[in-house]
Amino acid sequence: MTRITSVDVTDVRFPTSLSMDGSDAMNKDGDYSATYVVLRTDDPRLAGYGFTFTIGRGNDICTLAARQRAEPLVGRDVAGVVGDLGGTYRDLAADSQMRWLGPDKGVEHLAMAAVMNAVWDLAARLAGKPLWRLLSEMDTEDLVDTLDLTYLSDVLTRQEAVDMLAETVPTRSARIADMDRTGYPCYTTSAGWLGYSDDKLRELAALAITNGYRHVKLKVGANLADDIRRCTIAREVIGWDAHLMIDANQVWDVPEAIEWVNALAQFKPLWIEEPTSPDDVLGHAAVRKAVAPIGVATGEHGMNRVLFKQLFQAEAIDYCQLDSARLASINEIIPVYLMAKKFGVPVCPHAGGVGLCELVQHLSVFDYVAVAGTTENRVTEFVDHLHEHFTDPCVVESGAYVLPTKPGYSAQMFAASVAEYAYPDGAYWSTRHPHAVVVSEAGVG
Amino acid sequence: MTRITSVDVTDVRFPTSLSMDGSDAMNKDGDYSATYVVLRTDDPRLAGYGFTFTIGRGNDICTLAARQRAEPLVGRDVAGVVGDLGGTYRDLAADSQMRWLGPDKGVEHLAMAAVMNAVWDLAARLAGKPLWRLLSEMDTEDLVDTLDLTYLSDVLTRQEAVDMLAETVPTRSARIADMDRTGYPCYTTSAGWLGYSDDKLRELAALAITNGYRHVKLKVGANLADDIRRCTIAREVIGWDAHLMIDANQVWDVPEAIEWVNALAQFKPLWIEEPTSPDDVLGHAAVRKAVAPIGVATGEHGMNRVLFKQLFQAEAIDYCQLDSARLASINEIIPVYLMAKKFGVPVCPHAGGVGLCELVQHLSVFDYVAVAGTTENRVTEFVDHLHEHFTDPCVVESGAYVLPTKPGYSAQMFAASVAEYAYPDGAYWSTRHPHAVVVSEAGVG
Repeated sequence: MTRITSVDVTDVRFPTSLSMDGSDAMNKDGDYSATYVVLRTDDPRLAGYGFTFTIGRGNDICTLAARQRAEPLVGRDVAGVVGDLGGTYRDLAADSQMRWLGPDKGVEHLAMAAVMNAVWDLAARLAGKPLWRLLSEMDTEDLVDTLDLTYLSDVLTRQEAVDMLAETVPTRSARIADMDRTGYPCYTTSAGWLGYSDDKLRELAALAITNGYRHVKLKVGANLADDIRRCTIAREVIGWDAHLMIDANQVWDVPEAIEWVNALAQFKPLWIEEPTSPDDVLGHAAVRKAVAPIGVATGEHGMNRVLFKQLFQAEAIDYCQLDSARLASINEIIPVYLMAKKFGVPVCPHAGGVGLCELVQHLSVFDYVAVAGTTENRVTEFVDHLHEHFTDPCVVESGAYVLPTKPGYSAQMFAASVAEYAYPDGAYWSTRHPHAVVVSEAGVG
Repeated sequence: MTRITSVDVTDVRFPTSLSMDGSDAMNKDGDYSATYVVLRTDDPRLAGYGFTFTIGRGNDICTLAARQRAEPLVGRDVAGVVGDLGGTYRDLAADSQMRWLGPDKGVEHLAMAAVMNAVWDLAARLAGKPLWRLLSEMDTEDLVDTLDLTYLSDVLTRQEAVDMLAETVPTRSARIADMDRTGYPCYTTSAGWLGYSDDKLRELAALAITNGYRHVKLKVGANLADDIRRCTIAREVIGWDAHLMIDANQVWDVPEAIEWVNALAQFKPLWIEEPTSPDDVLGHAAVRKAVAPIGVATGEHGMNRVLFKQLFQAEAIDYCQLDSARLASINEIIPVYLMAKKFGVPVCPHAGGVGLCELVQHLSVFDYVAVAGTTENRVTEFVDHLHEHFTDPCVVESGAYVLPTKPGYSAQMFAASVAEYAYPDGAYWSTRHPHAVVVSEAGVG
């Protein structure tokens, strides 16, 4: 019998604020960070890796929450934990005292995501399969047993979930072959960070098209004149056959969003992403009506399945951008995919950050193979940074994620990276006091 | 010049799970807890006290978050902090790295509530007024400057807020006199905890009526036969002139809520409280339509102003039960009151817990004096426990909160109580290892 012997949770922070990678109208100086969970077993060759993503300060709070959340796993039999992934999830979620701090939102939910991502990684490693394949080959009833359908039955019953998944079983192997041949289409945000100069934007947008991308995304929302100038540059570079997306990162109220997006309509964006508060279902619905045919996209801050249920019910979004480290892992993510299919909304997962690309490639492949059955009108985010810290980094070729083949959820980081960027005692932070102080002062201001 | 010299944040937990006080269908064994904030100044007679409320495990996480959130206050001039309560709020909320962990929800938002509650307490103490009076006598424009109206302008503009408040100014002193005479009407939840026996329910419900209450609330949702029996007992005791409310604490999906509540319709409850997920705006709207004329109430887990905006827009609730320790203090609470007035929804604040009654009495008085101008169809929760730990406990007579007169937000706890129930090192917890271990084991299970 193999047991989980310990759970290591590390606060890992990368100093991305130094280069303005990741800068947008709301998040000006993020230090991309991971609350990194390792489930160790008494088999030295077997461990589970997972994380949630934050942007710096507060990652220590998530780390503490993840340690507490994972504690019940210590001492358990691995086969029992991964043999009942629904039961494991429910056990960890059931603590009613901790539930009070959400429920299912904020720090506690991010911690749940980190821990359950590690559990699913462990399950896939034990099975010797990449996670997308584990999910695609799992018995339908068993897979549905893992799902958290709480509060969803007005939109998605257990039987509907079973039926939707069962329907795709006969044709899955053909679609796996497709994925092996073509990969899953992606787009790049790397060109469009708000802190980049016009020259850097022009250069990176051109590079994106050269590299086979058909979509380029720009951050907007700080200054309308700047946005018009940057969108003009982007269209000059990518032309009008490629897609331009714009992303406001929640900086607007609803009336302002409508006015601003319509002022950018001349650039024919495919979507406006995060026009307003991520909690505002009815606000997104109002924006969508007012800016059509420009699509509305949101989801990276979509706190839980109940929020997504309502986004679908209210016909509030054209694109669902669920987040693999904010939703409570596969148990909560697959229900969102199923609801999206029922309502005809394409899922284009949020990625970037730390390791989110590594995770979402599995989700998108599973969606194509077992849920949506199509890549039409779908494109998954890709941001080309921090992959060097992962042992099984995603590979993108000609604007598509190459089908991952290694066992697990691609969530393992190199021990050397974790050691170097552990906060505040890792080699990087402990030897760079000046920057550490700047970070701390910004927190105090 | 008086400065804030330090911020003490203490994890205080009361062992309420021992007596089943506070037990309901979702929260079976809460240890009512406070993340308790003290803003100390270099004037030993002046400090600000505030808290958020949790039910046990995870209160340490809130404590850490509140410490970080309050850090920028240390060293600041008290007059500057309380002279610009909007600026102070925005400063503390502006950290974009911490914002990522919400935004405006979960642990980080609870921490913000705790800190800003202490800031408002400090402001009222410095002014020598109870908080309700500070708010009622503040210049209208100055008061509106303190409010967080972000994401609300599609429903409430700044000018509307100014106009709504200005309209009540001429008549406020008359209503203050009313409050001094009658107090603010309340109801009791003390009778109806799910863990109480039928005899205890019968006895406490009778006592409530004897004590002048016109409303009694029961916890429901664990077992329908039990609920029918308990509602029968309650109606036998209180008769049909008094109001019976029922509270499911989020245990149902939407279809189940509709079915269950209609099965209890024979008892003519005034409202069903928390029928489903607190995040489910559209779910509450659906329940409301299906169970009318029974009202729908929710709000104690209402995460932020954007959630309440939507509850109003969707006509999802008949009673708004905002929480004084979950919303980010006065800055976010008054906007909810203003929106409630605009949509004609009475606010009946959630209370109980630790010290929530002490806070909400100020809110309800302010609502009567400066916003709603009426107590019609309004009643504020009262639960009779843990008041002995507060230096200025609320006083309830003949089913009404007596107008508080002491300076501040009534948020100060006795130092001896804090010392005794500090977790895990206070006298209570450190000498009761067996119970502390039980708590810990429950967390592990």
